[in-house]
Amino acid sequence: MSDLIYRVNMSNLSFSIEEVPAGWMGLGGRGLTSTIVASEVDPECHPLGPNNKMVFAPGLLSGTSASNSGRNSLGAKSPLTGGIKESNVGGTSAGIFSKLGVKALIIEGIPQDTSSFYQLHITKDNVEFIKVPELVGKNNYFVLDAMLAKYDKKVAVMSIGRPGEMCMLTSNISVKDPKGKLRSHGRGGLGAVMGSKKIKCITVDAADYKEVTIADPEKFKAASKIFTKALQENPISGEGLPAFGTNVLVNIINEAGGLPTRNFRSGTFEFAENICGETMAENIKARGGDTTHGCHAGCVIQCSQTYNDKDGKYLTSGFEYEMIWAFGANLGIKDLDLIAKIDALMDDLGLDAIETGVTLGLAVDAGILEYGDGERAYKLIAEDIANGTPLGRIIGSGAGNLGKLYGLVRVPVVKNQSIPAYEPRAIKGQGVTYVTTPMGADHTAGYAVATNILNSGGYVDPLKKEGQVELSRNLQIASAAVDSTGMCIFVAFPALDDPACLPALIDMINARFGIAITADDVMNLGKNILKTEHAFNLKAGLGNASDRIPEFMKYEKLPPHNVVWDFTNEEIDEFWNF
Amino acid sequence: MSDLIYRVNMSNLSFSIEEVPAGWMGLGGRGLTSTIVASEVDPECHPLGPNNKMVFAPGLLSGTSASNSGRNSLGAKSPLTGGIKESNVGGTSAGIFSKLGVKALIIEGIPQDTSSFYQLHITKDNVEFIKVPELVGKNNYFVLDAMLAKYDKKVAVMSIGRPGEMCMLTSNISVKDPKGKLRSHGRGGLGAVMGSKKIKCITVDAADYKEVTIADPEKFKAASKIFTKALQENPISGEGLPAFGTNVLVNIINEAGGLPTRNFRSGTFEFAENICGETMAENIKARGGDTTHGCHAGCVIQCSQTYNDKDGKYLTSGFEYEMIWAFGANLGIKDLDLIAKIDALMDDLGLDAIETGVTLGLAVDAGILEYGDGERAYKLIAEDIANGTPLGRIIGSGAGNLGKLYGLVRVPVVKNQSIPAYEPRAIKGQGVTYVTTPMGADHTAGYAVATNILNSGGYVDPLKKEGQVELSRNLQIASAAVDSTGMCIFVAFPALDDPACLPALIDMINARFGIAITADDVMNLGKNILKTEHAFNLKAGLGNASDRIPEFMKYEKLPPHNVVWDFTNEEIDEFWNF
Repeated sequence: MSDLIYRVNMSNLSFSIEEVPAGWMGLGGRGLTSTIVASEVDPECHPLGPNNKMVFAPGLLSGTSASNSGRNSLGAKSPLTGGIKESNVGGTSAGIFSKLGVKALIIEGIPQDTSSFYQLHITKDNVEFIKVPELVGKNNYFVLDAMLAKYDKKVAVMSIGRPGEMCMLTSNISVKDPKGKLRSHGRGGLGAVMGSKKIKCITVDAADYKEVTIADPEKFKAASKIFTKALQENPISGEGLPAFGTNVLVNIINEAGGLPTRNFRSGTFEFAENICGETMAENIKARGGDTTHGCHAGCVIQCSQTYNDKDGKYLTSGFEYEMIWAFGANLGIKDLDLIAKIDALMDDLGLDAIETGVTLGLAVDAGILEYGDGERAYKLIAEDIANGTPLGRIIGSGAGNLGKLYGLVRVPVVKNQSIPAYEPRAIKGQGVTYVTTPMGADHTAGYAVATNILNSGGYVDPLKKEGQVELSRNLQIASAAVDSTGMCIFVAFPALDDPACLPALIDMINARFGIAITADDVMNLGKNILKTEHAFNLKAGLGNASDRIPEFMKYEKLPPHNVVWDFTNEEIDEFWNF
Repeated sequence: MSDLIYRVNMSNLSFSIEEVPAGWMGLGGRGLTSTIVASEVDPECHPLGPNNKMVFAPGLLSGTSASNSGRNSLGAKSPLTGGIKESNVGGTSAGIFSKLGVKALIIEGIPQDTSSFYQLHITKDNVEFIKVPELVGKNNYFVLDAMLAKYDKKVAVMSIGRPGEMCMLTSNISVKDPKGKLRSHGRGGLGAVMGSKKIKCITVDAADYKEVTIADPEKFKAASKIFTKALQENPISGEGLPAFGTNVLVNIINEAGGLPTRNFRSGTFEFAENICGETMAENIKARGGDTTHGCHAGCVIQCSQTYNDKDGKYLTSGFEYEMIWAFGANLGIKDLDLIAKIDALMDDLGLDAIETGVTLGLAVDAGILEYGDGERAYKLIAEDIANGTPLGRIIGSGAGNLGKLYGLVRVPVVKNQSIPAYEPRAIKGQGVTYVTTPMGADHTAGYAVATNILNSGGYVDPLKKEGQVELSRNLQIASAAVDSTGMCIFVAFPALDDPACLPALIDMINARFGIAITADDVMNLGKNILKTEHAFNLKAGLGNASDRIPEFMKYEKLPPHNVVWDFTNEEIDEFWNF
């Protein structure tokens, strides 16, 4: 069975199932979504208009037994950045797409009649368009429950909450995970693109799926074993992340002076202890939660968790470092349980944790709330954003737009997307990634924190400029390739330090498809993806001037290291010379 | 007495008075502001941060007895468009600057302590920095009254209202006119730049001024006579504009099918008769207003007016076509008196008529108000914008930003600036100006309506593409030059059709300075200004992709001609090949 392209046209509620063009054959995940977006979407189109497209594509290894291969990519022109966007997610969608033989799902057009929202139900050889008035105005868990009541429990569900319906630029697309919780296609406002197409949810039926075929099962099994061992033996992916989750980073980054605090005014948070991974793990153990939880089948890292309140009652899951930072250090909230409560609310609404947290941190400068006022933050989300009040529209539009409305200068965005939980002034390699990645400020695009702070892949001094552009470039190339395999980004840690890891990953790809690609091919794939994305952005109007840090970081010294962003434009623009 | 550069630094409340560098010597108005901004302002700086500058410069002929030479230019990086901006205005400031020997006033920096607003009081050889807590939160007429109570009645006053204090992107800088009414440095949110520098008002004392020196008074007088005659004998500047004001255009543009109606959904407004210039003139005559009023000393066109209500009570003045269109056809309001009441309110607050009206027209699509509901529009301005409520912040940020907050696709902006009162689909030459001018959608940058509709400078069919790029380019070059002389843009009509007009204008410049420039020099000046501005914009990130019409105009047919915007990107980008 060959994989196929499923193409849906919302303008006339039609679909077609197409052979995979030769040029797309060896691609998956981000490599495929970015290639399709770049070839089929006018870079100058309005991202919420009829000419934008959503492209879902599982990774090359998704659906196989390879560890950590369950990431699904979504590509589109982003309404937040105005550039190309790829966002990948765990959950169950990648595996089910692969097992159903869906190489990519392309959704184009906008219904003529915008009065209804639709569910797209995808089965083998068919796409149903179902009007879902009963789901309009509801949030993700309501939709998920409705779908689970209607279909086999294995059904993949991708949905938007009310912010997505309202086309807010902070809105995610939420995806069911193996335990019935939610993961997110975050960043870039992709929920708004789905909302603009009047799609409330997409379900992929698991009834007809088959195991994916492996060309050389023995070779695959052998390589898979080596790969899994590399993941398990690495101190970060095998120890730190399973023990404390991604939130292990609060103490590490705080000690490095790179934890953005109170809207990027300091690199340390005096209440880091209250919100750190160690405290979180203690709480979980004491309250009967679960410190390990995989966001997708086959995950051996298990960096997710379930987090209960003081009475042992479930509060949230998938409680990540970025969320805890964005509402903790960045908004000055030291109550981890309150942040967990906000996390659960945001999952249900389908809101980007980074964009929303940074926007609220900036909203303090606008006089909308005060640092540390978590109850007010909760209300602004639960009442204003959820109901689309004018204030909710403002916060729901992200930090860049809020900054414009209130005449603010200290606005921590690149390409209009909020900067994540690593201070670019104090972790300069990460800053290079923020300014150069075609995605807008994005920490996963080239995680230089690894080499700047975690001593993974060598060491480059985070406070100095030397070597950072090259470091970020190498990591971005590798990440673009990894994002095409369906692998979680955390495979980067063993890949950087264990010489057996990358060859094993390549062997799995070769065994899966009966091909013989090399490490060079993989690097070239990564380079091509970046260049394809960059070319799209240039045509969309995001040139060198968009590859810049917010100006205030060039003249405002960040404590405790009292560092500024000191790269010249020429040093940054050198990034694209490869 | 040589003219001098006055330079103010708000960071430390200091000033210096400098000789004019050789390269700036032959420049005035827009030529000078754009040259200074391009050479001194980092194109990548935050427009509301410490590195933006405001540059005021009277035109080359300002302060002389030349007819219609009283325009003052203001340049800066625009916080609305992100590109370079020049906005020129009538009123009394140009003449007084010139007579005081101020070639340009450059204002840089931002106070360390942002708790106070300042008045800058400029006299011969001095700048005073006066804290004005009593003016904070007040609007333009209050400020004007306070300054008139304090200084000689001839004092020039430039001020911002509350929206400017709040750095709203729809805010203007208001300028006292000869009759104590207000004119505006409109477009591009320059009021926000003044607000960011914590300047509430700038006063230029008239006590010390002297008549400007003319190198060759006889030659000047002779040329001036010819020039004035050309203005007076032209059917548009000599008849149409004096009789009906700029609002003469409502019927003309409506008949041409190019009057944007209800957020650019049609090119005709069924209630055009209610709001047209003829109706307005009848009202003025019947109610005892004044149909003719010059916005600056020496104006022979007198296209402004004072407009009274049904009881003969003063309602507003400077009641222009753009305002009447923006709230009339575009917002569906047919009550001219109500529009006049809104006009007076907007003058007092210091709001851009085009940007605010287009934003409100778009706000209908966001469900904020309904077409034709002028009372609601008034309240949104008087209560929400004036008080900076969340909804006021949204509307006060302009159409582009409102569109982003509400996920709207039909957003009529170019470079984030609202499109004025001529439909680009139906008056294509004007559309070329909107997309190519470095200013963002701006009708004055190259008024192709003249040749597309008014048969001035020949005729180019407004509904066809042929010849429009060349037409707009020629007009933009000429306008950039005219904007450097201090002349009102309406001198373009005789300049296009009366062979004596342009030579007389050049003779006046030569006689004023004792030089011998030619018509070619003037054209080269215009070309250089455009190229300087364009180069700034390219560095600021506004490349070809920003020279585009809103996408919906490419696929949505505009009644009654059922036309779309059909230029290719290549045809538009050809504009810059000169």
